[in-house]
Amino acid sequence: MEKIEISHHISKQFNAELEDIRNRVLAMGGLVEQQVADAVTALVEGNTRLAETVISNDHKINGLEVALDEECTQILARRQPAASDLRLIVTVIKTITDLERIGDEAEKVALMGLHLAKMERPKNQFLEIHDLGARVRQVLHHTLDAFARMDTEAALRITRDDEKTDHEYEGILRQMVTFMMEDPRAIRRSLDIIWSARALERIGDHAKNICEYIIYLVKGKDVRHISLEQMEKTALNKD
Amino acid sequence: MEKIEISHHISKQFNAELEDIRNRVLAMGGLVEQQVADAVTALVEGNTRLAETVISNDHKINGLEVALDEECTQILARRQPAASDLRLIVTVIKTITDLERIGDEAEKVALMGLHLAKMERPKNQFLEIHDLGARVRQVLHHTLDAFARMDTEAALRITRDDEKTDHEYEGILRQMVTFMMEDPRAIRRSLDIIWSARALERIGDHAKNICEYIIYLVKGKDVRHISLEQMEKTALNKD
Repeated sequence: MEKIEISHHISKQFNAELEDIRNRVLAMGGLVEQQVADAVTALVEGNTRLAETVISNDHKINGLEVALDEECTQILARRQPAASDLRLIVTVIKTITDLERIGDEAEKVALMGLHLAKMERPKNQFLEIHDLGARVRQVLHHTLDAFARMDTEAALRITRDDEKTDHEYEGILRQMVTFMMEDPRAIRRSLDIIWSARALERIGDHAKNICEYIIYLVKGKDVRHISLEQMEKTALNKD
Repeated sequence: MEKIEISHHISKQFNAELEDIRNRVLAMGGLVEQQVADAVTALVEGNTRLAETVISNDHKINGLEVALDEECTQILARRQPAASDLRLIVTVIKTITDLERIGDEAEKVALMGLHLAKMERPKNQFLEIHDLGARVRQVLHHTLDAFARMDTEAALRITRDDEKTDHEYEGILRQMVTFMMEDPRAIRRSLDIIWSARALERIGDHAKNICEYIIYLVKGKDVRHISLEQMEKTALNKD
């Protein structure tokens, strides 16, 4: 009996460790989400102080990534997890890389915010960045929700909707090229807007990566680089 | 005695598995290197057939990533590696993500090659892309060498030299902005050159990531997000 109790105890501790890891990913995700929101606000409102806060906060995200990576490696060494526990650890190792890079993209948007604050504001008050930023924040929020609830249907929906983000980004790109051709004095500003839109579009890509890991984690199948129809079959378990 | 022999046998098999993983990373790296070289050649020479080959080859890299990821997860489950073996597996899982993304950037350069082949060639015959491409190919080649030889000094040198790639990229960016301002008809072409240079600059970043993993693997210390001086101390084992 003692042996079983110890094993039960170890397993409870192990579960607590896995739960802790998941919570820390979500905490890191929350911070990243805030950085994205603040970077977009800073740029749209020309708030240089907020932009500087975003830039100086980036090291926190980096620190969380390194600490979580270390914890995952230690769990692998100590617990030697198998099956879904192992997949959770591998998923977390990959997810935090994408979260960290979302943080880098938020920092880029904040940097562009600092540049743009020194130039004449465009007539549309950065409406395109405001809108794309709002979309991408939603995508990131839903992605973290899907991670928290291990919701493959939501993950699939987000993956499918990434096309919309891409279209919105391409629309901004076309519009900026037109502006630049009409008014060469707007070239620098338009380029900074393009860089910001590009950073936001990449945040959508990273969120999509995380969604693919969620499907892998829950279903045990790698769904990267396959067609949306195949991914749908796997996520909805129809095959 | 029998037990020791079995354990020895298992360990030999395990070593062979780890060696196999390392060789497959290098093979994947070799393919990625070829893709980068071909993408740059295709763009500079306006060779659309070569550009299309690069684009259609990208799925091979994706396939290698998924297969290697699967093999790493299986080794983690079956062998429950510890210490440096565990670090090797974690390093490989991270390295192949960066290699796959280098492949994506090569594909982008090839796509820009297709766009640019339809436009008038610039007077300098894409010299800036040729030069930046040559630099980045070297960086990638040295990175794979450093991985093969687990050479932390080389990894540190590459990390330190990434600044030069960044400067070269920034020079191209400034030059293109000047061109666009002088001649608005060159805006589309200049933007495509900017996107290509950006993709090459990102390849340098991914190579740098891999070098950081190599230092982590050999020294057992995470050197991401720390200063170059601290990284130097860790890589050269002076602390």
